[in-house]
Amino acid sequence: VLVPDALGMSRIARRPGLRGVRYELGTEPTADQADARAIVVGMPDVEAATAFIGRLPSLSLVQTLSAGYEQWLGRLPPGVALSNAAGAHGAPVAEWVAAVLLAHVRELHPFAEAQHEHRWDHHGTGSLHGKKVLILGAGDVGRHTARVLEPFGCAVTLAGRSSRDGVRAMRDVLDAPGDADVVVLAVPLMPETEHLADASFLARLADGVVLINAGRGRLVDTDALIAEASSGRITALLDVVDPEPLPSDHPLWGTPGIRITPHVAGATPGLWERGWDAALDTLDGWARGEHIIDLNGYSEAT
Amino acid sequence: VLVPDALGMSRIARRPGLRGVRYELGTEPTADQADARAIVVGMPDVEAATAFIGRLPSLSLVQTLSAGYEQWLGRLPPGVALSNAAGAHGAPVAEWVAAVLLAHVRELHPFAEAQHEHRWDHHGTGSLHGKKVLILGAGDVGRHTARVLEPFGCAVTLAGRSSRDGVRAMRDVLDAPGDADVVVLAVPLMPETEHLADASFLARLADGVVLINAGRGRLVDTDALIAEASSGRITALLDVVDPEPLPSDHPLWGTPGIRITPHVAGATPGLWERGWDAALDTLDGWARGEHIIDLNGYSEAT
Repeated sequence: VLVPDALGMSRIARRPGLRGVRYELGTEPTADQADARAIVVGMPDVEAATAFIGRLPSLSLVQTLSAGYEQWLGRLPPGVALSNAAGAHGAPVAEWVAAVLLAHVRELHPFAEAQHEHRWDHHGTGSLHGKKVLILGAGDVGRHTARVLEPFGCAVTLAGRSSRDGVRAMRDVLDAPGDADVVVLAVPLMPETEHLADASFLARLADGVVLINAGRGRLVDTDALIAEASSGRITALLDVVDPEPLPSDHPLWGTPGIRITPHVAGATPGLWERGWDAALDTLDGWARGEHIIDLNGYSEAT
Repeated sequence: VLVPDALGMSRIARRPGLRGVRYELGTEPTADQADARAIVVGMPDVEAATAFIGRLPSLSLVQTLSAGYEQWLGRLPPGVALSNAAGAHGAPVAEWVAAVLLAHVRELHPFAEAQHEHRWDHHGTGSLHGKKVLILGAGDVGRHTARVLEPFGCAVTLAGRSSRDGVRAMRDVLDAPGDADVVVLAVPLMPETEHLADASFLARLADGVVLINAGRGRLVDTDALIAEASSGRITALLDVVDPEPLPSDHPLWGTPGIRITPHVAGATPGLWERGWDAALDTLDGWARGEHIIDLNGYSEAT
């Protein structure tokens, strides 16, 4: 297994079924590296990584340390599978969703402004209690988000690729999102999900809805969102935007009803350690011959 | 049962075991009012209410609509019991605790400032995961707070009046609060709890602790808190302060490391409806002859 960093080398040393070999991008693979059957990738230069991967004839698996994997889709050689660090980042991202949603309903930003002005601005606020929350994406992030929001008395609906116990079919939910008070985007970015939240979807949402993007910026049509938020019909709480980083002169920064954090939902202590633990659990199973979900072919396969 | 408002009259009409009679403060009790065995109080002028209560010879119970009841302690005639709206306000107050704590650890206020300046300030933040949370008070608010924080991966310790299953004894915890990362005040204000968080208690807390006051302002010695927060050793997230409302020239407003909301933790939709439901549940039991915990004598009795 090719390993890009020292943390990974120390982590893989504890896994008797795996042998780690350190690699650096921008070099030719050595003979030992060229024998590698799997490679772990962090957040590298995708062009350089793709070139390196193309020179590994024995490779059968690319394993990410992140939950997102959109940069690898369609870029891997035929027969090379793609696996993400599922399970690593759901908890911190769900924590971010709860944080920004609670701050919004309990009006913490206006109260901070009142404090700045030494103003005792007592008035009632909203609450999550009884709110209908629709989570698009029933994977690691979606399920963690449901688990932390439900104790606040929300009614949570999960939507996933296919309908199953406790999960509604995404297609049905996108066509008729109903009267959800809160919609959380927690799906991977793929050709089918790009601009999932376009003008037509946003128009189908109830007046006053809170849209939360915990996935990738390109899930949302930014221009359409700016139009709906400017009219006051939609509030949006965004950790990811399109483009990223957001240029200082971009209109999204100052659009009323839009709150932005700079792609920090998963950026909590232990980020890379969690990524490695999830990646190595998958690689352990793969080395024992277990089936790996190939995300590279996933969108066509299901 | 004497009832101070129209909401209460409509709610009590659904309770066949209770008869509601409307009252107004500042008047002499009528003959019908003077026969009352119980009176429900909202947030009235305490002097006027105490005078009115003193002219009710058959009275045996004062029932509040709020969780807090400090204003009635020592003010009721001998033999008149005091009961609060336990169970009504725990959920919204716990929601407020989670909101301010998550906003703090995920740095939402600094990110809002960065947005205001159109600045993409990407950096990792803290997380609640693995944090040690000590909740002083194992009543309605304390237990609800534990229930909403635990799914974020905190290790929660509850401290109550006496040691019991899952609850540590308050006295032991106050003497040795240990290395808690977060301390939540969720006890009623009583003579024994006034200035519970004094200079000596604050000095026993670990460096960098986050102190959250979800009870009453006078649980904390404000001057001692300002000293500890100014030194940067303690962060405080306060919904209640001493005095209240906080005058615009009070130093607490501008002390670094102190965030203030204006006594809004319980002020969510349905506030008074929840208060009435809890109050009438207690009064139903009382009318059937069930034992009522008398908060007026509670501090001496246990």
